[in-house]
Amino acid sequence: MNRRPSVIIVGGGFGGLCAAQALKSAPVDVTLIDRHNYHLFQPLLYQVATGSLSPGEIAAPLRSVLSRQKNARVLLGTVLDIDPLSKHVLLADGASFEYDWLIVAAGSQSAYYGHEAWREWAPSLKSVEEAIDVRHKILYAFEVAERIADPAQRRAWLTFVIVGAGPTGVELAGAIAEIARQTLKNDFRSIDPKEAQIILMDSAARVLPPFPEDLAEKAKRSLGKLGVEVRTGVMVKDIDKEGLTIQTHAGTNRLEARTVIWAGGVTVPALGKTVAGRTKAETDGSGRIKVGPQLTVANYPDIFVIGDLAFAPDGNGAPLPGVAQVAMQQGTYAAKAIVARVKGEPKQADFRYFDKGNLAVIGRWAAVANVFGIHISGLPAWLIWAFIHLMYIVQFQSRILVLIQWAIQDLTFSRKELASVATKPADTDNIAANM
Amino acid sequence: MNRRPSVIIVGGGFGGLCAAQALKSAPVDVTLIDRHNYHLFQPLLYQVATGSLSPGEIAAPLRSVLSRQKNARVLLGTVLDIDPLSKHVLLADGASFEYDWLIVAAGSQSAYYGHEAWREWAPSLKSVEEAIDVRHKILYAFEVAERIADPAQRRAWLTFVIVGAGPTGVELAGAIAEIARQTLKNDFRSIDPKEAQIILMDSAARVLPPFPEDLAEKAKRSLGKLGVEVRTGVMVKDIDKEGLTIQTHAGTNRLEARTVIWAGGVTVPALGKTVAGRTKAETDGSGRIKVGPQLTVANYPDIFVIGDLAFAPDGNGAPLPGVAQVAMQQGTYAAKAIVARVKGEPKQADFRYFDKGNLAVIGRWAAVANVFGIHISGLPAWLIWAFIHLMYIVQFQSRILVLIQWAIQDLTFSRKELASVATKPADTDNIAANM
Repeated sequence: MNRRPSVIIVGGGFGGLCAAQALKSAPVDVTLIDRHNYHLFQPLLYQVATGSLSPGEIAAPLRSVLSRQKNARVLLGTVLDIDPLSKHVLLADGASFEYDWLIVAAGSQSAYYGHEAWREWAPSLKSVEEAIDVRHKILYAFEVAERIADPAQRRAWLTFVIVGAGPTGVELAGAIAEIARQTLKNDFRSIDPKEAQIILMDSAARVLPPFPEDLAEKAKRSLGKLGVEVRTGVMVKDIDKEGLTIQTHAGTNRLEARTVIWAGGVTVPALGKTVAGRTKAETDGSGRIKVGPQLTVANYPDIFVIGDLAFAPDGNGAPLPGVAQVAMQQGTYAAKAIVARVKGEPKQADFRYFDKGNLAVIGRWAAVANVFGIHISGLPAWLIWAFIHLMYIVQFQSRILVLIQWAIQDLTFSRKELASVATKPADTDNIAANM
Repeated sequence: MNRRPSVIIVGGGFGGLCAAQALKSAPVDVTLIDRHNYHLFQPLLYQVATGSLSPGEIAAPLRSVLSRQKNARVLLGTVLDIDPLSKHVLLADGASFEYDWLIVAAGSQSAYYGHEAWREWAPSLKSVEEAIDVRHKILYAFEVAERIADPAQRRAWLTFVIVGAGPTGVELAGAIAEIARQTLKNDFRSIDPKEAQIILMDSAARVLPPFPEDLAEKAKRSLGKLGVEVRTGVMVKDIDKEGLTIQTHAGTNRLEARTVIWAGGVTVPALGKTVAGRTKAETDGSGRIKVGPQLTVANYPDIFVIGDLAFAPDGNGAPLPGVAQVAMQQGTYAAKAIVARVKGEPKQADFRYFDKGNLAVIGRWAAVANVFGIHISGLPAWLIWAFIHLMYIVQFQSRILVLIQWAIQDLTFSRKELASVATKPADTDNIAANM
């Protein structure tokens, strides 16, 4: 009896899941391994952090997504290592699985550039758990401010700093401004949430570096209208429990801010380094694995690396950006390449990225979009953003309710997820310590 | 200048929140103190644990509920102690607040009857955090079973035991059965989730002790149809990581079950004991504070105790049950009593509980209800249950979407919150240890 070729996919993000789905009718057995039982719709994670959506609304259980795909199975587990010679992946629990084809789609994680200690005071926004913590941190800051009499302390609790002015940072800053100015405006007695200072900072010269200059300028103006203070050309020197030390061309400054959120850069996960080591693959400065024109690792035509973990050059030799679009197209490409090879078809064309554009949402009915080179802003851009995100969500699970919820929220400024669920019990008892 | 009388309410559950709302037009200043920033709609907590609702959908932020009530403020904090002589409450963070009238509505917590070690293996269902953990535990058990080859081990992972056959236990058992038999039925490759064994056990002679005999019998039959095995007259002797030791009239038995959920009894929280100590109030066996006919503590007519923490006898001297209805009526009563006394009105009538009946839901379109003495079961009871719960939810926040979601879920057997968010990272790595 002929065993069907085994395809192992590591990671159920955009790249891995697209690859699995593209193998639907292929004569292969697909094993998708992820540490979580869900596919996370990361572009909306900031909405979980800011109380608009619940984790379940942006997390599609991998099993139900692949429930009808009979050639696919899902394993919950952490891949620790691979052996490219015997063609095995090794899981943290000791189990090992053999592959004929391997697709490594292990994604990225937030990078603190050697300052791991900052993570404690400035959480990032890469996982559901972190989003829940960020939500708690934001809501808790208003609660503490309500209890504090000292004006300087109160101001520090009402100062929110977002480090990194890429799309996630812009989206977070806009949403926090809306929480302070609209959602909570009548809820407190001692403070006025509108006094909150929301600062979006970046070492770059402008917000949204991947966007054209004019759209970045429009985004900055929209943020200003929402009450977000944009500070560019600012280097973070230190982050501690009380705030940040920053450096500008004018010198070094201290900024008291009890809520700091890290929307800085990303790096590769531990598995990325392991795969690079085992295959002796070249990596770039941030550890991404250089792949050939068919997205495979040099000398290992059976190992594909896709998504954030891959360094796949665009036409000019620069790496493709770490966004969902790239990962999805690469996942589909890898799946088709495997099918072609399994069937013994002639060599497939090289991977080519089809860039549909960039989108960043700023707030209610405000966004910027660069779609096929056309620059759009304001409500039209927001409508494009909403449409595209809804299509993706509906693709994975029937989530038409998200549309209705957004409509309600946008008309009423309410947010439905403002219950602050702490991951650590009884942390309300720290208020005095902070006073 | 005359200071308005200060009313401090400890606890934002059904009793405390109703009291605060009933003081809306009263010439008093209301301070509501809770450890969380939300009012939790506890009767639906089992739906969070079983993936039907998100925490935000049953948690109404106290601030937004009381946002328009200008004489009320909300404080996030833990009340540690009271001084009934100087009339102060003391918070864990060191702050203290003076009251003229105090309403203690601190609720209850799950009781393990001297076996605190069981809590680790058999979580209860009193908080959002516990509900999230229980959800993770249930979903994770199926994931581990999928990975295990040994039939006995696999069976242990697919055995779910709910200890305590009151309404919460019945509701949980029914929902887990539906998850196994409907929601997950196509999602696994090695196991059939329908093989899962769901056992509901109680030391009492029948399920739903507060219900009439015939309804309890109907509930038991409905549970049987869903695939729940009901075992009554069973004493739990021990709970450990692997399962339970139980005692029946036939002797002592071992039951291998990796998922045990505690829906047993309740006891008073630490603050209950403190208040009893400070006021030298009488308590019953489970620590509840005995209150007079006007719900105040003996010798302290300015201290009301309401809800689960109060031992308030019904007409026959038996304590009123720890349910939302009782707490809400007591909260409204306490508020009215305070207003009457502040205004110097003649003595108010004693508290009388108006029992509207009991409801327990078993599964899709199945429930039992004892409404004004009329015994109802099946779909009609389910409709009453759904209507009443929706009315409560709508009362606190505009949550009409919950209705739409229930409709969709009931037609499709889907559950929208099946992403298993672990509170501890990387616990998927334990799978091997459990094999």
